[in-house]
Amino acid sequence: MTVRRIDAGAGSVATIGTGLLDKAQDVLASPSGRFLLVSSPGSAPAAARLRRALSGSLLADLSIDDREESKTLETVKRIADAAIEAGLRRDDAFVAVGGGVVSDIVGFAAAIVLRGVDWNAVPTTTGSMTDAAIGGKTGVDTPAGKNLLGAFHPPRTILIDATALETLPERDYRAGLVEGFKAAWIADEALAERAEKRIASLLAREPEAVLDLISGAVAVKAAIVSQDPREGDRRRLLNFGHTLGHAFEAAGGYRALKHGEAVAWGIRGALWLSRRRAGLAEAEAERVRTALERLGPFPAPERQRSALAPFLARDKKATAKGLAGVLLERIGRARVEEAIPIEEWLEAAATVRI
Amino acid sequence: MTVRRIDAGAGSVATIGTGLLDKAQDVLASPSGRFLLVSSPGSAPAAARLRRALSGSLLADLSIDDREESKTLETVKRIADAAIEAGLRRDDAFVAVGGGVVSDIVGFAAAIVLRGVDWNAVPTTTGSMTDAAIGGKTGVDTPAGKNLLGAFHPPRTILIDATALETLPERDYRAGLVEGFKAAWIADEALAERAEKRIASLLAREPEAVLDLISGAVAVKAAIVSQDPREGDRRRLLNFGHTLGHAFEAAGGYRALKHGEAVAWGIRGALWLSRRRAGLAEAEAERVRTALERLGPFPAPERQRSALAPFLARDKKATAKGLAGVLLERIGRARVEEAIPIEEWLEAAATVRI
Repeated sequence: MTVRRIDAGAGSVATIGTGLLDKAQDVLASPSGRFLLVSSPGSAPAAARLRRALSGSLLADLSIDDREESKTLETVKRIADAAIEAGLRRDDAFVAVGGGVVSDIVGFAAAIVLRGVDWNAVPTTTGSMTDAAIGGKTGVDTPAGKNLLGAFHPPRTILIDATALETLPERDYRAGLVEGFKAAWIADEALAERAEKRIASLLAREPEAVLDLISGAVAVKAAIVSQDPREGDRRRLLNFGHTLGHAFEAAGGYRALKHGEAVAWGIRGALWLSRRRAGLAEAEAERVRTALERLGPFPAPERQRSALAPFLARDKKATAKGLAGVLLERIGRARVEEAIPIEEWLEAAATVRI
Repeated sequence: MTVRRIDAGAGSVATIGTGLLDKAQDVLASPSGRFLLVSSPGSAPAAARLRRALSGSLLADLSIDDREESKTLETVKRIADAAIEAGLRRDDAFVAVGGGVVSDIVGFAAAIVLRGVDWNAVPTTTGSMTDAAIGGKTGVDTPAGKNLLGAFHPPRTILIDATALETLPERDYRAGLVEGFKAAWIADEALAERAEKRIASLLAREPEAVLDLISGAVAVKAAIVSQDPREGDRRRLLNFGHTLGHAFEAAGGYRALKHGEAVAWGIRGALWLSRRRAGLAEAEAERVRTALERLGPFPAPERQRSALAPFLARDKKATAKGLAGVLLERIGRARVEEAIPIEEWLEAAATVRI
């Protein structure tokens, strides 16, 4: 199978294929040639393959918990302290192996230790391959909210190996595909059509179908991020489904729903807003709903107004004017609408069919 | 007295004069017009003046301890949490009022909260006016060493008001002048000559002499930093006196010596290396020593080899080849020499006349 290389913007290159974990020494980048591996229990099989491929070049081999609860500044400090203890120099590089929690933590540690060293992302989940590891945002949560502390610090390389998905639990696998579809729906109609037609192959984890969706999603995100590395209008398109999604996720205490599941419900709400405000045709909205149903079933979200409202009001993208939303005009084309009233978001949440 | 504006590189502008604290609303920058003030007990008089000048625009008014011991990630988190609690948005800006510890902490908090918001530096010590607040380096210490965690995040504006120095304790005042002289010695012979001639006026805190040295030092640092925002050869020139200085400071547990005092002793050691390796004339070395004596007397440093050696070996700028040093070829001209053996550094430390 061919290896694809995609410029992922801001100095990142994504290398996508099968069996790349075993050739990591040819893909990952470190100015000194030395690496600090950070993995999680869930990414143990991929980490074992990397350990063999990088043997002799590992300065440290660290493990972190990959649950959202461990996405704290304390975990970042623990990684940084261990790296310094191991003799980290400015020309060494981290390798983050795992899902989005691992890349968020390790990328942030790399951003601040010695005021910044290089890092590489090796995503091992559908969610991190299609979204979390791309774009340079790193960060941790605080009691006040998700990703409130962090840095823009893109990885030098992103190694995506479809074989890493073989051991991913089914629920994580399906939830992560939502982010891949999201990328297609906002910016690539042809990709959306191919992926919708091949949902059975995607759910069967057939490498060709999986790599097509992942490559397409990476390309969509890379194109957007390279035009808008920080947080202007273009980049906000990637938040399709995320405004309500974050509220659903928070209202469930970050335990009831996986991130991708919450985004799936958030997209359902955003479709209602898109029908009302952006002229999305009912037939297209129904295509998206059908695909989401086939990717599920997902656990039902908390939809109580009183549970959701505080999280919408406190969204870090909220301005004095209201809360911006990403609306679909048609499949493959989205736009940002400023200042949608919180009341309307709550109405959208209530329309979500469970 | 005229107000000077100096482009301090990387998007920073330094505004230098007398009485500027009372006109802060015309000098400090915030996209939203809202500010979060962070001050220390030592900067209380300046903070009170800023509070009046910015009244009606303050979103938060926080206080931190300005001792080196509080330069930790925990303090940064406390500032960030308080800012979020106060309702911080991405278009708000911090104002750090105090010495280098305050600007290091607040600049780092501004770098990571919401993945980066603007900040302003209002240095209130000679050390932070001439050095710490300029150049964009922010950071905190860990048990393994100083400034091991941090970010490059330059303040939008640096407000330097000579009247803020009126209440600075004598020892801090003198220690901080060392950084101003250091800037002159490495890159501005005319400034060095003026400052050496006017040491009595400087020690009497005469605004004209003080502002001349501060403006000159800011210009030197800004010129170097704008050519080399991160840590290449040019920027390393600013470390003149700092390699041994850091070791003296660490060996004293960061309590025995103020930073500028440790740098003064470090410069003494660097003069010996410069005589030996860079052809510095004895008459010029003696000029520097004389000036340092008049800025002192400074407490004697720990000079035991066994006390200094571990800190030199662990210096974060150490490479496999050794430890680079900044040598003076003549007053106003310095260069970096790579890989000076630790043994030779220890010899230099031993030559320091107390």
